[in-house]
Amino acid sequence: MTGPLIRARHMQAIQPFRVMELLARAKKMEADGRSVIHMEVGEPDFETPRPVIDAGIQALREGRTHYTPAVGDMSLRNTISQYYLDRFDTHVDADRILITPGASGALQLALSVLVNPGDEVVLADPGYPCNRNLLYLLGAIPVAVNVCPDTGFQITVELLKQVWTDSIRVVLLASPSNPTGTLISKAGMASIIEFARGKGAIVIIDEIYQGLVYDVEGFTALELSGDIFVINSFSKYFGMTGWRVGWVIMPRQYVDDMDKLAQNLYLAASTPAQVAALAAFKPGTLEILEERRGIFQHRRDYLVPALQGLGFGIPQIPRGAFYIYADCSGLTDNSFQFCQDVLEQTGVAITPGLDFGDNRPERYVRFAYTTGQSQLEEAVDRLRTFIQS
Amino acid sequence: MTGPLIRARHMQAIQPFRVMELLARAKKMEADGRSVIHMEVGEPDFETPRPVIDAGIQALREGRTHYTPAVGDMSLRNTISQYYLDRFDTHVDADRILITPGASGALQLALSVLVNPGDEVVLADPGYPCNRNLLYLLGAIPVAVNVCPDTGFQITVELLKQVWTDSIRVVLLASPSNPTGTLISKAGMASIIEFARGKGAIVIIDEIYQGLVYDVEGFTALELSGDIFVINSFSKYFGMTGWRVGWVIMPRQYVDDMDKLAQNLYLAASTPAQVAALAAFKPGTLEILEERRGIFQHRRDYLVPALQGLGFGIPQIPRGAFYIYADCSGLTDNSFQFCQDVLEQTGVAITPGLDFGDNRPERYVRFAYTTGQSQLEEAVDRLRTFIQS
Repeated sequence: MTGPLIRARHMQAIQPFRVMELLARAKKMEADGRSVIHMEVGEPDFETPRPVIDAGIQALREGRTHYTPAVGDMSLRNTISQYYLDRFDTHVDADRILITPGASGALQLALSVLVNPGDEVVLADPGYPCNRNLLYLLGAIPVAVNVCPDTGFQITVELLKQVWTDSIRVVLLASPSNPTGTLISKAGMASIIEFARGKGAIVIIDEIYQGLVYDVEGFTALELSGDIFVINSFSKYFGMTGWRVGWVIMPRQYVDDMDKLAQNLYLAASTPAQVAALAAFKPGTLEILEERRGIFQHRRDYLVPALQGLGFGIPQIPRGAFYIYADCSGLTDNSFQFCQDVLEQTGVAITPGLDFGDNRPERYVRFAYTTGQSQLEEAVDRLRTFIQS
Repeated sequence: MTGPLIRARHMQAIQPFRVMELLARAKKMEADGRSVIHMEVGEPDFETPRPVIDAGIQALREGRTHYTPAVGDMSLRNTISQYYLDRFDTHVDADRILITPGASGALQLALSVLVNPGDEVVLADPGYPCNRNLLYLLGAIPVAVNVCPDTGFQITVELLKQVWTDSIRVVLLASPSNPTGTLISKAGMASIIEFARGKGAIVIIDEIYQGLVYDVEGFTALELSGDIFVINSFSKYFGMTGWRVGWVIMPRQYVDDMDKLAQNLYLAASTPAQVAALAAFKPGTLEILEERRGIFQHRRDYLVPALQGLGFGIPQIPRGAFYIYADCSGLTDNSFQFCQDVLEQTGVAITPGLDFGDNRPERYVRFAYTTGQSQLEEAVDRLRTFIQS
C-alpha cells in the first residue's frame, strides 16, 4: 500500500501504542478459543453505577439531547464545585469549571490555550503517552524528566532544576500517575507549583485517577493554588469511561479563552452524559464508588506481593489508580518481547514499558488490576508457570 | 482583570463568535420577560427521533458504557457503510469510516493528519468559522476564497485558480454550506476534486447537512472519488446534536494515522450515543427524518419570499441546511448593528455576517429556520414593523 502523499510531519513523531499489537493478537487468540486474562486495560471492569445509568435513562426520556453551552451544563458545573467543597473543603467557583469530552478534551484545551510551537513542556517519563503526542500536534517540545523509583516515579523540584530551560512554559504532572500508580505528596506538589510560578511557568495537574487512592488521604492540588490547571474525569473513579465526560479547572483569567477554544474544538460534551454525571455525586453513588475503591485496594494488596514473589521489582507500593509498574529486569532484558511471550504462552495480556516513554522502558511492564480477584490469581499462577519453566 | 501571562499566540487569531454577545443579550431580555424568537441557532428545533432515544435507553439498560475502539463501534461503521450503499449506491468500506465526537472531532482529525504549520488551506468566505480557527491552532494558513451569489456562495475551479499557490495542500468545501445553505453541483464537485488532485492537494468535504436538501437530488462526494475526506454527523439531519457523534470517511492510506490520532485526541466517541445512532438508519427513523425535511423545506419556502418582501436580497434560493444568508445592504450598511437593533427592538435574534468571515460581512445576516412556522411568521411581522418604522 502506498503511503499518503500529504501527511503532517507530526504524524511521524506520534507513535502508535505498542499494546495495540498485543491486543490484536489477544483478540485473535480469543477468537481461536484461548483464554486471555486482560491486565492491559486502563478501564475499570465495573459497570457504570446504577444511579448514573438511571439518570442517563431519565435524561433521554426527558429529551435532554440538545447542545449544552460549550463550557458545559450549568447544574453539572455547580455540582462539581460543591463536590470540591464537600470532599476537599476547597472553594472552586463554578465559572472556573469547564466540562469536556473526557480528560483528553480537557488536556487538549489546556495545552492549546497555553503553548506555542517551540515552547517546552516538562513531563514525567514514564507517563501517559498522549500527553507527549498532543504536544507534537501543537509543535511544542516535550522535556522528559526521567523519574525513578527513588522519587516514586514522580517529578520533584530537584529534578525540575536539572532540566530547566528558559523555554519551559508548562509543567505537566499526574497524581495518581498512569502507568506507575504513584502519588505526589501535598508538600511536593506545593513546592513544584511554587517553583514553576517563580520561573514564570504554569502547572497542569492530571487528577483523573483522583478518588482511587489507597492507604493515604487524597487531596486536590486546588487546595494549594487557584493559579493552576487541574484535569479530571468521570471515567475512572466514577466508572463512566464510555460516556466521555471530563472537566478542567482553570485560573480565572483563562475562562474566556477556554470557552472560545471549546466552541471551536468540540462545541460541547455529550448532553445525556452530562446530565447522567449529575448523579455521580449522589450519596448512594459515592457509596458504590467507595466500595469499589475497597475492591481495587484489595486487588492491589494481593497483586503487589504476588508479583514480587515472582521476581518482579516493585520498590514502592503504588498508592493510586489501578496500575502496578513492575520492574521485570530480573526476568528479561526486553520487556516488549517479554509481554509478547507472556501473552503467547500464558494468555495474560500486560502493557510494555515502551508505551510510556523512553526511560528504560525495556525494564518495565504495567499491570492493570481491572479484572476480578479470581482472574488475578489465575494470572499469577500462569505467570509462575511461565517464569519457572 | 489581568490577562494571562502565558497564552498561545493563536488565541489572538481565534475570534469569539459575535452571536454570543447577542445570545447573552437575548437571554437577559427573556429573563426580563420579553419574548425572543430564536433564528440564530444552528440546531434543529426537533427532538431526537423516538427510535433513537429508545435505542439510547436500551443501550444504557444493557450497560453499553465502556470504551469503544478509537475508530468507533464496528456495527455503527458497518451500518454507515450500508447507508452509503442504500442511499447513494456507493461502496464505502467500513474500515475507511471512523466515528468521531461530532463533526468537530472529524474535522480536527482530518486537518491534523494533513497539515503542517505554514501549509495553506483553501476555504470559502463566508464559511463555518471553526474551520479557520482549527487551522490557526495547527499553525496552518487559511486562504479565503471570497464567494459571492454568482457562484451560489461556493468555490469553483475558476476561483481556485485565482488564489492558488504552491503552499496549498488542502481544499475545504462544504455542501450544503453554513451559513449560505447553498450546494455544490456534482459536476462542480468533480471538477474541483480533479483540479486539486492535479495540483497535489487533497479535498475535505463537509457534508454535515447532507440529507437536508430541497428541490434537487442529494449526493455524496464519495460517489466521485475515494481519495477525499468526507465529514458527516448525526447532529443535523439525524437530529442528534447534543449526543455528539459524527464520522469521517478517509482515503484508505490514512486509516492507521487517523486511528492513532483519534486515540490521542479523544480516545473514542460516546458509547451510548454510538449505540443509539445505530437506530438512526432504521426505516421508521428515516421516515420521521424525511417528514422533518419536508417541514424545513416548507419553512424555507415561506421565509425566502417573505424576507425578499421586506427588502432582503436573496439572489439564489438556498437548497440545503436550514439557513438563509440574506443581503441586508438595502436596509443597513452595518449588519452587526442591524442585528443588535433588531434584537433590541423586535426580540428577533439573527446572526451577523461577521461570524462567517471577512467577505463583506457588514452586508449579510444569517437566518436559521430552526423554529416553528408560527414563530417564523411572527418574526416576519416584527421585522416588517421594525423596517417600516
